Amino acid sequence: MATPCMRVVAATLSPALLGVAACALGLGGGCSSVRAVDVPQVACDALPSWREGAAKERIVDIVARATAAGSPEFVPVEDRIAVFDQDGTLWAEQPFYVQLAFAVDRVKALRDAHPEWETEEPFASILRRDPRAVAAQGEAAVAKLMAATHGGMTVDEFRATVRAWLDDARHPETGLLYRDMVYQPMLELLAYLRTNGFRTFIVSGGGTEFVRAFAAERYGIPTEQVIGSEAKFVYDADGPRSEVRSTGEIVFLDDRVGKPIGIMRRIGRRPTMAFGNSDGDLEMLEWTVAGDGVRLAAIVHHTDKAREWAYDRDSKVGRLDRALDRAGGDGWLLIDMARDWATIYPAATARDR
Amino acid sequence: MATPCMRVVAATLSPALLGVAACALGLGGGCSSVRAVDVPQVACDALPSWREGAAKERIVDIVARATAAGSPEFVPVEDRIAVFDQDGTLWAEQPFYVQLAFAVDRVKALRDAHPEWETEEPFASILRRDPRAVAAQGEAAVAKLMAATHGGMTVDEFRATVRAWLDDARHPETGLLYRDMVYQPMLELLAYLRTNGFRTFIVSGGGTEFVRAFAAERYGIPTEQVIGSEAKFVYDADGPRSEVRSTGEIVFLDDRVGKPIGIMRRIGRRPTMAFGNSDGDLEMLEWTVAGDGVRLAAIVHHTDKAREWAYDRDSKVGRLDRALDRAGGDGWLLIDMARDWATIYPAATARDR
Repeated sequence: MATPCMRVVAATLSPALLGVAACALGLGGGCSSVRAVDVPQVACDALPSWREGAAKERIVDIVARATAAGSPEFVPVEDRIAVFDQDGTLWAEQPFYVQLAFAVDRVKALRDAHPEWETEEPFASILRRDPRAVAAQGEAAVAKLMAATHGGMTVDEFRATVRAWLDDARHPETGLLYRDMVYQPMLELLAYLRTNGFRTFIVSGGGTEFVRAFAAERYGIPTEQVIGSEAKFVYDADGPRSEVRSTGEIVFLDDRVGKPIGIMRRIGRRPTMAFGNSDGDLEMLEWTVAGDGVRLAAIVHHTDKAREWAYDRDSKVGRLDRALDRAGGDGWLLIDMARDWATIYPAATARDR
Repeated sequence: MATPCMRVVAATLSPALLGVAACALGLGGGCSSVRAVDVPQVACDALPSWREGAAKERIVDIVARATAAGSPEFVPVEDRIAVFDQDGTLWAEQPFYVQLAFAVDRVKALRDAHPEWETEEPFASILRRDPRAVAAQGEAAVAKLMAATHGGMTVDEFRATVRAWLDDARHPETGLLYRDMVYQPMLELLAYLRTNGFRTFIVSGGGTEFVRAFAAERYGIPTEQVIGSEAKFVYDADGPRSEVRSTGEIVFLDDRVGKPIGIMRRIGRRPTMAFGNSDGDLEMLEWTVAGDGVRLAAIVHHTDKAREWAYDRDSKVGRLDRALDRAGGDGWLLIDMARDWATIYPAATARDR
């Protein structure tokens, strides 16, 4: 493994300018601190949790081609956009989405105020059984669950609720805090891309406000760079207490064709790079590499039964089937978690285990 | 007038980091180039086109309180968001919105391909009379006009069409290029706020893609920081030619209550400052100052019949009536164009006249 980056921030650079810099975010990678753009990346290894091999080489090569002055494939800073799916790409999604676990726990927390839920679906199943029962009831049940558990609050109240839950909600199998089941190699990749002038966006099928609740703290990604499924908002005009509230009703599904559409609506241009892990990301990946110039479509392939989970074509959550077929023929990068990642979770997560 | 800023960019700062800096954008203000954050702003006048007076003093004072280390009203960089209406706030809107002039010219350009328009409304009126006739026909006519002139293209094609039109479309009364009728004091204000760590967003009732076509070049604002009314997008999956297209059908109106809702959807937090000029901005202004801590709601009041236009309560375009009533009682800043602005348009515009 190459030397991890150990750079000091130049005293003349203000913290404001370093919002793009990897290590100011304390993401825990090999870098303790890097200066944002003018430090040659060849001098150190910004991706220490990535094993040497084709995947890492290809990422580093594309960044070099996109950013080297005079490169025929140079991408101007304003066009350096990298988009990341969340569930299964930045953090774990098995055996069910974290947001579903949150909704289930909200039902339990609100149970006393809703005696009718003891017999009303999908709440009754949730109160008696495991979260997977809801998914089996179909989209209408999920929508009902979302409205009941995600709506009726201001956006700020909702995010605070999510953050409080994440502070101690643990995964039923690993016993880890959900919030610590983020992928260390992807944290390093986010920081590495920002160090090279890319703006990093999350493009999640999950709820925008759910992800915004922790995206800055976990991934160094500000609220305006989180794209997700959207609930209906209403404006509650009340003079000095005016607020925007969420009804919880889903009005935009940021999945499949919704991903390129959501990216164009929100970012307004085609990304240079897109990272996903399931068929829900297929259109985003396809559209990304359909652009001119240097582009990358990459899939995190869950192959690591020992350290995480191994699943693809037959999984109910994060199914990777059509996109896996496409990957080979279209030259998309397949990131093999077992082979390519030296570490799965951050060191702090392991200590917490 | 104080000395305009003349600063040299430090050699250790890369161009990438200076995307936020005012003068790299060539906006033509008093600054030729400023270092982004660590240059004391008291040393020079970043707002040379603003006359000394209460409006300028209040803006400079609020920026100082929000950014000074140790200030009780310090606003962290991640929360420094400033939002700007476009029509009538960043550029002229009389006697009709520029986007309407574009739509009218598109009808004329597409006339030969649509012989049915010679008798079909609203096209027939447009081909015979002035653009104001369309507005008089109501929302359905406007929607029909928008779909016919803004839809059926990829987003990139649409923006290229707008840019080509702006290159030589001129205002019927002033004879100036529409693109040059931007307000010099507001260009300086955008640059000044960015220099102080604010992220500047446009929040326009106009079409998002129309504004995105020129926002980077005119205002230094990238596509992801343009919020506006939205047309329906569709994903056109076609392998290596996959594209996002616009139908031209308006699905989100970013006006009145739509502005705080659009800001929360897109930015994800309440701005520190909001600038508008009409009743369409009332909810955005009200919601902005309803937040805790230092906030500013400001209205550009069109009082300058000699150099621009004078209008407020009775204007069909950009009516300022309810918001003008609110401004006094709620402590909003009224920017009096005739009194507060030494210059209206950039120097290059005057030379072009």
